[in-house]
Amino acid sequence: MSDILVVGSLAYDSIQTPTGKVDKTLGGSANYFSLAASLFAPVRVVGVVGEDYRSEDKALLQKRKIDLEGLQVQKGKTFHWAGSYEGDMNEAITHATELNVFEHFNPELPVKYRSSEFVFLANIAPELQTQVLSQVEKPVFVGMDTMNFWIQSRVEALKKVLAKVDVVLINEKESMQLTGSSNAISAAKKVCELGPDYVVIKRGEYGFVLFSRSEGFFIWPAYPVEKVVDPTGAGDTFAGGFFGYLASLGRKPNWTDVKAACVRGTVLASFTIQEFGVAAIARTTPEDVETQMVIYHKLVQI
Amino acid sequence: MSDILVVGSLAYDSIQTPTGKVDKTLGGSANYFSLAASLFAPVRVVGVVGEDYRSEDKALLQKRKIDLEGLQVQKGKTFHWAGSYEGDMNEAITHATELNVFEHFNPELPVKYRSSEFVFLANIAPELQTQVLSQVEKPVFVGMDTMNFWIQSRVEALKKVLAKVDVVLINEKESMQLTGSSNAISAAKKVCELGPDYVVIKRGEYGFVLFSRSEGFFIWPAYPVEKVVDPTGAGDTFAGGFFGYLASLGRKPNWTDVKAACVRGTVLASFTIQEFGVAAIARTTPEDVETQMVIYHKLVQI
Repeated sequence: MSDILVVGSLAYDSIQTPTGKVDKTLGGSANYFSLAASLFAPVRVVGVVGEDYRSEDKALLQKRKIDLEGLQVQKGKTFHWAGSYEGDMNEAITHATELNVFEHFNPELPVKYRSSEFVFLANIAPELQTQVLSQVEKPVFVGMDTMNFWIQSRVEALKKVLAKVDVVLINEKESMQLTGSSNAISAAKKVCELGPDYVVIKRGEYGFVLFSRSEGFFIWPAYPVEKVVDPTGAGDTFAGGFFGYLASLGRKPNWTDVKAACVRGTVLASFTIQEFGVAAIARTTPEDVETQMVIYHKLVQI
Repeated sequence: MSDILVVGSLAYDSIQTPTGKVDKTLGGSANYFSLAASLFAPVRVVGVVGEDYRSEDKALLQKRKIDLEGLQVQKGKTFHWAGSYEGDMNEAITHATELNVFEHFNPELPVKYRSSEFVFLANIAPELQTQVLSQVEKPVFVGMDTMNFWIQSRVEALKKVLAKVDVVLINEKESMQLTGSSNAISAAKKVCELGPDYVVIKRGEYGFVLFSRSEGFFIWPAYPVEKVVDPTGAGDTFAGGFFGYLASLGRKPNWTDVKAACVRGTVLASFTIQEFGVAAIARTTPEDVETQMVIYHKLVQI
C-alpha cells in the first residue's frame, strides 16, 4: 500500500443538466479524485481554497482520512466553475470560470509529502504540474490529466510534463486535439510517443481505450447507466479509482494491474454521474465497488 | 446450417471521405449484407437493379454462391446514393438519393425462397419489409434494420414490423430518435418493449450494445482500426456477419449464440471500413475472420 499525492483544483461548481441544477456544489479535480482514490489507498492533497470553503466540505474529505496538510487557505474566494450539459450530455458548455485564489496558486509540498511514491497531476497548468513533481524525491508511478485549454495555449510546457509521467489519462477529443489524429486508436499510439508508457483515453459513455507501447490495446465499454444526472467529475473519478487501486498494490504497476485499474476507474465513474457533484462518490463504499465489479465483468463476458 | 433470405437495396454509391473518393461503386444494404453473411451460410437476395447493373458486380455475389433468383432487373437505372464523411467520419452527409428503379419496387419471392428460416429485412420502407416477411411460410428467426427517414415519416408502419421480428439492429442515434431516449442503454430497453427479443445498437467506432429482455446487456467496443477509409456499409456488414453466423448454427439462436454473433459482426465491419465500398469484405475469407477474432477477444481480456 503506497500513499498517493494529488495536485489539482478544489472548486465550487454551478451545474445545470436536463435533470436539474445545483449552485456552488463541491467540485474540482482534486476533490473527485481524492474521494475516489481514498476508497483504496491513503491520499494527500495539494491545492488551494478561499475563505468561503465550507467546513462540511472539508469534513467530507477528512472522513475518508484524506491528508489536507498541503491544502492552502488563501484570502479571497474558492475557484468557481459554472457550466451546463444538453442532450446526450457528452460535452460541457462553460458559462463562467472564476479562478479566484487559484490564479496565484504556488504549490509547496509539506515535507512528509515529498516521499510520496504515487503522484497524480490532475488537470491544472502544466507549469504547476512540473513544480509539484519536481518536489517529489523518488516517485514510483506518476500520472497526469490535462485539457483543451492547456493543449491550445501551453503545448510546449505540457509536452515537458508528458515526457516525465508513466501514464496520461485524457479525454477522447483532447487526445485527438493533442495528436492531430481523427480517432482514439491512432491518438493513443501518438500520445505514447510523447513519453508515457501508458495512455488511457476516456470516452465518457463509451468507456475507455488503454494503450501500452509494449502490450497493445485493452478496450472496454462504460458501465451501463440508464439515467445520467450530471457527468461532471466522471474523468477525475475514473483517475481516482485507477490510481487508488494501483497504489493499493504498493508496487510498480504491470500491464495486468493497469488493466484492472481501468475497470475500477470506470465503475467509480458510473457512481459519480448518477447524482450531482460529489454526492454519490462521497457515499460509495468499497463493498459497492465490488458488487458493481461483478456486474461489469458479466457485461463483457462472452 | 439454414438459408438466409435478405431484402434490401442494391445500389451504386458515390462517396467522398478525407482519404479519397469513388464514383458509382457497388453498395447498398443487400450487397454488404450478402457478402458478409455468405462467409458463414447460403444467402438468397430479394431486390431490384437497373439495366446499368454491371456484370462484374453480379459476378462478385455469384462467386460467393449467393442466390440471385429473387433479383429483379428493371428498365431504368440502379438506385444511386452520393454522400461524404468529414472529421471523425461518424456521420454521413447525403448529397443525393436517386431511387430510380427502387421507386416502384414490388418484392415477389421466388417459390423456393418462401421456406427460408432466417430472414433479414435490411433498411428499406417498412411496408416492403412487411410485404417480404408475409411471403415467408415459417420463419425461425427474423431480423431488421431501419433508418431515420422511416422513423420520421412512417413510424406506425415501422412499429408493425418491429412487433414481428426477433431482433432489430439499429444505429445509436436512430435508437434514440425512435424511443426519445438520451442514451443507448435506456433506448435498448425501450426498443425491446416494441416487440423484439433482442436489440443490437450499433455505435460505429464505439462498438455495440446488445440487450435481451430476459438476459440483460452485453457490450463490447469496436475492433480497433487506426485508419478508417470509408465507413459506408459498416452497419450492413455487421448485420451480415451477425445473421450469417446465426444461420450457420441452424437452430433458433440462444443468448450465447447472439453474443457470439455480435462479435463476428464487429470483426467483419472492421474489414469493410478499411477500404472503399465492398472491396475489403468481398475479399475477406473465413480464415481472416478467425485470425481477427483471436485479436479481438484478447483486446477485452482482463
